[in-house]
Amino acid sequence: MKRIAVLTSGGDASGMNAAIRSVVRVGYVRGVEIIGVYYGYRGLLTKDFHPLLPRDVSGILERGGTILRTSRVPDFKLTENQEKAIKNMKEEGIEGLIVIGGNGSQSGNLALFEKGFPTIGIASTIDNDLWGTDYTIGFDTAVNTAINAIDKIRDAAVSHGRTFIVEVMGREAGFIALDAGLAGGADFILVPEVKFDIKKITDNMREAFKKRKMHHLIVCAEGAIHARDLEKKIKEYMPNVETRVSVLGYIQRGGAPTRFDRIIASEFGQHAVDALLSGEKGKLVGIKDNKITLIPLKDAITKQKTIDKSLYKLAEEVSV
Amino acid sequence: MKRIAVLTSGGDASGMNAAIRSVVRVGYVRGVEIIGVYYGYRGLLTKDFHPLLPRDVSGILERGGTILRTSRVPDFKLTENQEKAIKNMKEEGIEGLIVIGGNGSQSGNLALFEKGFPTIGIASTIDNDLWGTDYTIGFDTAVNTAINAIDKIRDAAVSHGRTFIVEVMGREAGFIALDAGLAGGADFILVPEVKFDIKKITDNMREAFKKRKMHHLIVCAEGAIHARDLEKKIKEYMPNVETRVSVLGYIQRGGAPTRFDRIIASEFGQHAVDALLSGEKGKLVGIKDNKITLIPLKDAITKQKTIDKSLYKLAEEVSV
Amino acid sequence: MKRIAVLTSGGDASGMNAAIRSVVRVGYVRGVEIIGVYYGYRGLLTKDFHPLLPRDVSGILERGGTILRTSRVPDFKLTENQEKAIKNMKEEGIEGLIVIGGNGSQSGNLALFEKGFPTIGIASTIDNDLWGTDYTIGFDTAVNTAINAIDKIRDAAVSHGRTFIVEVMGREAGFIALDAGLAGGADFILVPEVKFDIKKITDNMREAFKKRKMHHLIVCAEGAIHARDLEKKIKEYMPNVETRVSVLGYIQRGGAPTRFDRIIASEFGQHAVDALLSGEKGKLVGIKDNKITLIPLKDAITKQKTIDKSLYKLAEEVSV
Amino acid sequence: MKRIAVLTSGGDASGMNAAIRSVVRVGYVRGVEIIGVYYGYRGLLTKDFHPLLPRDVSGILERGGTILRTSRVPDFKLTENQEKAIKNMKEEGIEGLIVIGGNGSQSGNLALFEKGFPTIGIASTIDNDLWGTDYTIGFDTAVNTAINAIDKIRDAAVSHGRTFIVEVMGREAGFIALDAGLAGGADFILVPEVKFDIKKITDNMREAFKKRKMHHLIVCAEGAIHARDLEKKIKEYMPNVETRVSVLGYIQRGGAPTRFDRIIASEFGQHAVDALLSGEKGKLVGIKDNKITLIPLKDAITKQKTIDKSLYKLAEEVSV
Repeated sequence: MKRIAVLTSGGDASGMNAAIRSVVRVGYVRGVEIIGVYYGYRGLLTKDFHPLLPRDVSGILERGGTILRTSRVPDFKLTENQEKAIKNMKEEGIEGLIVIGGNGSQSGNLALFEKGFPTIGIASTIDNDLWGTDYTIGFDTAVNTAINAIDKIRDAAVSHGRTFIVEVMGREAGFIALDAGLAGGADFILVPEVKFDIKKITDNMREAFKKRKMHHLIVCAEGAIHARDLEKKIKEYMPNVETRVSVLGYIQRGGAPTRFDRIIASEFGQHAVDALLSGEKGKLVGIKDNKITLIPLKDAITKQKTIDKSLYKLAEEVSV
Repeated sequence: MKRIAVLTSGGDASGMNAAIRSVVRVGYVRGVEIIGVYYGYRGLLTKDFHPLLPRDVSGILERGGTILRTSRVPDFKLTENQEKAIKNMKEEGIEGLIVIGGNGSQSGNLALFEKGFPTIGIASTIDNDLWGTDYTIGFDTAVNTAINAIDKIRDAAVSHGRTFIVEVMGREAGFIALDAGLAGGADFILVPEVKFDIKKITDNMREAFKKRKMHHLIVCAEGAIHARDLEKKIKEYMPNVETRVSVLGYIQRGGAPTRFDRIIASEFGQHAVDALLSGEKGKLVGIKDNKITLIPLKDAITKQKTIDKSLYKLAEEVSV
Repeated sequence: MKRIAVLTSGGDASGMNAAIRSVVRVGYVRGVEIIGVYYGYRGLLTKDFHPLLPRDVSGILERGGTILRTSRVPDFKLTENQEKAIKNMKEEGIEGLIVIGGNGSQSGNLALFEKGFPTIGIASTIDNDLWGTDYTIGFDTAVNTAINAIDKIRDAAVSHGRTFIVEVMGREAGFIALDAGLAGGADFILVPEVKFDIKKITDNMREAFKKRKMHHLIVCAEGAIHARDLEKKIKEYMPNVETRVSVLGYIQRGGAPTRFDRIIASEFGQHAVDALLSGEKGKLVGIKDNKITLIPLKDAITKQKTIDKSLYKLAEEVSV
Repeated sequence: MKRIAVLTSGGDASGMNAAIRSVVRVGYVRGVEIIGVYYGYRGLLTKDFHPLLPRDVSGILERGGTILRTSRVPDFKLTENQEKAIKNMKEEGIEGLIVIGGNGSQSGNLALFEKGFPTIGIASTIDNDLWGTDYTIGFDTAVNTAINAIDKIRDAAVSHGRTFIVEVMGREAGFIALDAGLAGGADFILVPEVKFDIKKITDNMREAFKKRKMHHLIVCAEGAIHARDLEKKIKEYMPNVETRVSVLGYIQRGGAPTRFDRIIASEFGQHAVDALLSGEKGKLVGIKDNKITLIPLKDAITKQKTIDKSLYKLAEEVSV
C-alpha cells in the first residue's frame, strides 16, 4: 500500500489534528504517501484531495478543530455515493482510507469497507460512545473543559446559596455528564442510562438545606433531560428554591487538547497506518484496558457501550 | 473611625475576594477593626457580623465568588429596613460601611448614606455599567473567560464552516459583548447601545461566502437580542445557513480573577478604607483614566455610562 | 474497623485533596470515623489528629496541594519512631491507616505494615514511578501543566527560530518528560531510561536547518541531564546555535487537578477505605489496565517501573 | 501614502499578532497596501517583503508569538545598514514603516526616522518599560501567566510550609514583578527600583513563623536579584529555613493574549496606520490615562519610566 487517504468527519473533537499529524508523519516514515481529504465524506465525492507532508502538519498538535475540516453528509448513506467515493479514490491511486470520527462517521466507513475498500477508523468523538474502546479522542478535553466551567459556576452557586443546573453534551450517552459530574463535585448527576426521580432529588436537597448546605450543583446530560425542563420539574416540588441554568454547549468541542487526547491521538494515528499496512481493514482503532486495540467497525457502532455503574455509585458516595 | 463593616451584594464578580482582603488588611494596618457582614444587606438586618483579621482572608485572593456570600434583598428598598440596618450597625459600634457591588447594590448604599450613615462603595460588577469608572471589578475576568470560550467555539466554527452566535451577559449594556467580540475576533457584535440590521448582517455574510469565508462568529449581548431569537431572524434571510448557538451564562462570573481585577480590587479596597478614614462618604471608588477616583454614588448609579463608539468602529474595521 | 487515619506525605501532587475527600466521605458512608493526620508522618509522632466529616472536605476537590499538609520526615526510618506512631494511633483507637503519597512515603507505610499495623497506600506522585500502577495521582495534571507551558514556549521558539530546552521534573524516571515531550511536540526527548547521543541530536538539527526548520524543542527530564548542562554540550557541537533554557520546576506540582486525577483520586480513596474494611493491608491502591487494583506495597516500591518504549518510538516518528 | 511596511522586532510578546492583524486590516480599509517584513530588521536588509491581505491574518488574533517572526540584529546600529534598509523600502515603493517592539527595536526605528524615513512605533514588550505609555502589548498576558504560575506554586508552598522564591522577567524594570507579586499575593517583592534589605525580610519571616505562618512567597525581578542568589542570602540569615526556587522564564512571553493585550494591540495597530496617513512620524503609539496616545520615539526610549510607588506600598499593606 503506497497511498492512503485520511479524513475527519462529523462533530469536531479536540485532538483530531494530533491524529492527522500522526497519520501523516508515521505514513511518511513508513514510505507511504498520505492524501488529506477535505470536508469529510464530501471531499471524497468532490475529490478534494491534497497530499500531506510532515511540514504541512507542523504547529497543529495543540490546536482544536480539524485542519482537514469536517462536514455531515447525510447523502453518503446512498450506495451510489459510496461507490463514487471508492471510484474517486481508486482513480487517484488511493489504496486505503483512515476515517477519524465518531459513530455516524464510522458507519460511512463501514459501508466503504463492506463494498470492498480497505478502511480503518480512528475513534474520535467527545461523546465517548463507541463500543469496544474505553476512550475516544476529544472526550478527555471536553470533560476537562466542562470541569473548568463547573469550577467557575460553583463560585456563584456557593456565593449565592443557589442551585445550579449544568447541562453537558451527550444525546445518547452520559459519559461526559458522569465524568464531569464526578470530577466537578456535582450533588446529582443525570444520565440517559439511569432513571432519575425528581422527588428523591428534591427530598435530598431539603435535607441538605436543613444542614445549612444552601447550594447544589446538578449536572445533566442533554440526552437525559434538558436543563430548562429539569428546572421546571424541580420548581414543581420546591417552588421557592433559587435555580440557575447553564448549558455548556460548544465550548466542550474545542480548545487545545489535553495530554490524554494528544497521546491517544498520536497512538491511534500510528496504529491506523500500521493496521492498513499489515492488511487489517474494517476495524476501529481504540484503547481498551490501557492498550491500543482494533475493534471490528460493525461491533464498534452497533453494540451498546454503557457507562460504568460503579463510577456512578462512587459519585453518589463522594457527594454526601 | 474605629470600626468599619464590609459586605458584598448582588451578582458575584471575580475579584470581590481580593477587595475584601484589601479592606481587611489595610484596615488592620490603619488600626481599624473590620467587620464582615454576611449575605449582603440581609446580613445587616440579621446582624450577621463577624470581625475579620488579616489571617481570615488568607488564600482568597485567587478565588472567585465571595467569602462573605451575597444576596439580592428587594425589601431593602423599604425605609424601615434601611433604618434597621443603620440601627444594627450603630448598636455594634460600626461607624462606616463599605459595599462591594454593582448598580443595584450601590442604590442600597446610597440610601444608607442619605439617611446619614457614612458609606463608601466599591465598583464591582461584571457588567461594567457604573458611571464615572472606566472599569469595575470582575469585568476583565468575565471578558477573558468569554474570549477563552469564543476561542474554543471558533475551532468548531472553522472546522464546520458554520455561523456561531455567542450570547454573553449584559442586560442593559454592551461592555462585555463589545470587548469579547473585538478581542474574540467576532465578525459582528450586537450591543443594546447600537441599532443593528439583520439584513445588513446577512448581506455581509453572503458577500463573505462568495470569497469562500464559510464561518462567521456573532457575539451578542443578552440585552441586545437573545441568541436563539437572532438565529431565527438570520434564518428568515438565509434559510440554508448552518447556525449554532452558545449562551455563555454563569461561567462569566466565576473563576480566578485576572491581574487587572486583582490589582484594581486591591487598590479599590485600600482607597475605600482611606476614604472613610478621611471623612469621605456617599462615594464610589472606581478608576478613571488609569487613576483611582471617587465618584458621587448618586452620579454613579443614575448617570448613563455608554460604550466607546470608537472601539465599536475599530471592531468593524479589524473584522474585514 | 471503626476508625481510620489518613495522611498525605512527601511531595504534594494535584489531586491529593480529591483523594482525602473521597476517603472522608466514603468512610462516612461506610460508618467509619476518619481521622485526618496533619503534616504527614510528623503528625503521627505529634498526634496531630483531627476527625474529618463530609462538610470538612467541601470545596477542596478542585484545589491543588493538600489540606492535610505534608512533610518529609527522614527520621521516620527509625524503628522507635515507627513504633511511636503505631502506639499513638492505637491510643486514639485508630485501627487502620491510609497513606497518600509516592515512593518514599509508601516506604514508611510499608514499615508500619511490617510492624503489624493495617495500612493501605494510595499511589500519588507527579513522577508516576510506582511499580504496578499505570498512573499515580498528580501525574496527569503535572504533564498537562508542562504541555501548556511548552505550548507557550513554542511561540517564542518559532518566532525567533531558536532551540529551546525545557527541563521537566523526574529524578529517577522519564514519565513526565516522555508524555510532555510527545504531547508537546518535542523534537527530542531525553529521559534517564534511554541513552542519548548529543552528536546525533545536533546532526539531526543541522539536517533540519537545511530544510529551513529553524526552531527546535528539546524536553529533558531533570534526571537525564540538566537543561543548562545540555545547552553547554550542544554548544560544543554547534557553537553558533541560539539556545534558550526553561526549567519548569514547581508549577508542575500544583493547580486544579484534571478530570483524570480527580477521578482516579476519588476511586483510589473509595477503594482504600473498602480495602481496609475488607481486611486487606500492606497494599497500594493503583490503576492497572484501566481497573483499580491492589499492589503489594513491597512490590510497588522495590520493583522498577519503566517507561513505555513504544511510546518513545512513537515520539520519534511523529517528530519527523 | 499607499504602501506601508510592518515588522516585529526583538523579544516576542503575546499580542503582536493582534497588532499585525489590525495594521493589515485597517490598512486595507484605508486603501493602503500593507507589506509584511519577515524577521524584523533583518528582513529590511534582505528584502524579505510580502504583501499582506485581510485573509492572511485570519486566525492569528489568539496566537502568541509573531507570524512575521522576529530577530535581534545588533548590526542594525550601523549607519550603512540603516541606509540600506531605507533604500530597500524605497525601491519597493514603501512610504512608511510600522515597528512593533520594545526599547531596542524602537531605537532602530528612531534611527530610520532620523534619517528621514516616516516611521511609527507600536509599544510592545512584556517588560512594560517604554516611557510615556502606561502599558505595552504583552505585559498583561505575561503577568497573568506569572500569576497563574504563582497560584500553582502557592499550593506547594502552603502544603509544605516552605519559602518559595519566584523569579520573573525584568532586567531593568520591576513592572512584571510588582504586578505579579501584588496580584499573586507575594509576601515580599524585589524590584530593581527599590532597595531591599535581606535582614529586614528575614526578620519579618521570623515574626511570621512565630504567628504560625509557615510559608512565604517572594517574587523577584531578574534585574533585582537572581532567585538562586537571593536563596543563598536568605540562608545566611536563616540557615534552617526550607526554600525552593522557581524561575518562570520564557512561559511569560507566549500563550494566547488576554482581553487587555488583544484590545490595545488592535487599537495600537489602527492608530499607527492612521498616524502615518495623517503625516505623523517618529512617534510611538501607546496608551496613557486610558487613551491612545503618540509619544515622540526619542522620549519613549530615553526617558526613564518608573514603577508606581503607591502600588509598591499597597503590596506591602495587603501582605500583612
